[in-house]
Amino acid sequence: MEIREFTDADWPQVWPILRAVIQARDTYTYDQDMTSEQARVIWLEPPPGQTVVAVDEGGVVLGTAKMGPNRPGPGSHVSTASFMVGPQARGKGVGSALCRYALDWARSSGYAGMQFNAVTETNRSAIEIYKRLGFAIVGTVPGAFEHPDLGRVGLHIMYCAF
Amino acid sequence: MEIREFTDADWPQVWPILRAVIQARDTYTYDQDMTSEQARVIWLEPPPGQTVVAVDEGGVVLGTAKMGPNRPGPGSHVSTASFMVGPQARGKGVGSALCRYALDWARSSGYAGMQFNAVTETNRSAIEIYKRLGFAIVGTVPGAFEHPDLGRVGLHIMYCAF
Repeated sequence: MEIREFTDADWPQVWPILRAVIQARDTYTYDQDMTSEQARVIWLEPPPGQTVVAVDEGGVVLGTAKMGPNRPGPGSHVSTASFMVGPQARGKGVGSALCRYALDWARSSGYAGMQFNAVTETNRSAIEIYKRLGFAIVGTVPGAFEHPDLGRVGLHIMYCAF
Repeated sequence: MEIREFTDADWPQVWPILRAVIQARDTYTYDQDMTSEQARVIWLEPPPGQTVVAVDEGGVVLGTAKMGPNRPGPGSHVSTASFMVGPQARGKGVGSALCRYALDWARSSGYAGMQFNAVTETNRSAIEIYKRLGFAIVGTVPGAFEHPDLGRVGLHIMYCAF
């Protein structure tokens, strides 16, 4: 598996991954009716941020990540990142590898830390990865995520200081 | 003082308030080089949200607020709001009145609560108002705000359940 910068030619493989994650409605606070064009605007992070893909030896996109400043102006020294892994590629370390990549990118870009603003508290596999890589839960907004099966569950704010 | 919906004719009075707050760089994570056009896009909340102004008897705009869903999709049942008060109008209850208005609006619109994502921990007067109106600090991201005089200070996440 290789992680490299996104190019336009990747979108036909990236969009189905995003669509599957968005339509499952169990992890991201994205509008489930989002079109390919709307998703592209949200997922392609402009400089100084970037969007990457994790590809296997055959060129198949397994997952994708975007990273950049979490907030503008006086908040721009803290980074954020988002990760999505295709349904067929889960449980193989793709999410961990993307998160490690994003942390390396943010550290070498001079950010002071990385913040996740809305981690669904039932997304245990992701939370486990984040904790293993140095993130702690800063707080939890109760009931802030409407889960399709579990009803309203909390959203964690997580932070990793560099 | 009356609080009413923003109209286009208010912008010449609203923009100087925003500019003063943004350029002070001590409360909001907005880009200090923001133009009037960029600020307009950020401050004018599209439906189902709204933007309002607080005006005195002479039609002078004292402050402004925007309110709407905090996140799309599975997070859209939680509201958020932002408030700005002009330098000349501070300490007169304008911020409190705008916050009370936003809470009433969110409650009557059926939201489950209101979340503030980034309250600078040194903005004590605002935090005091929010606590008095029912908000609690969910957590604090350490050093996430670069204050022009105080260096890096924390950003609170605050929440008020309805």
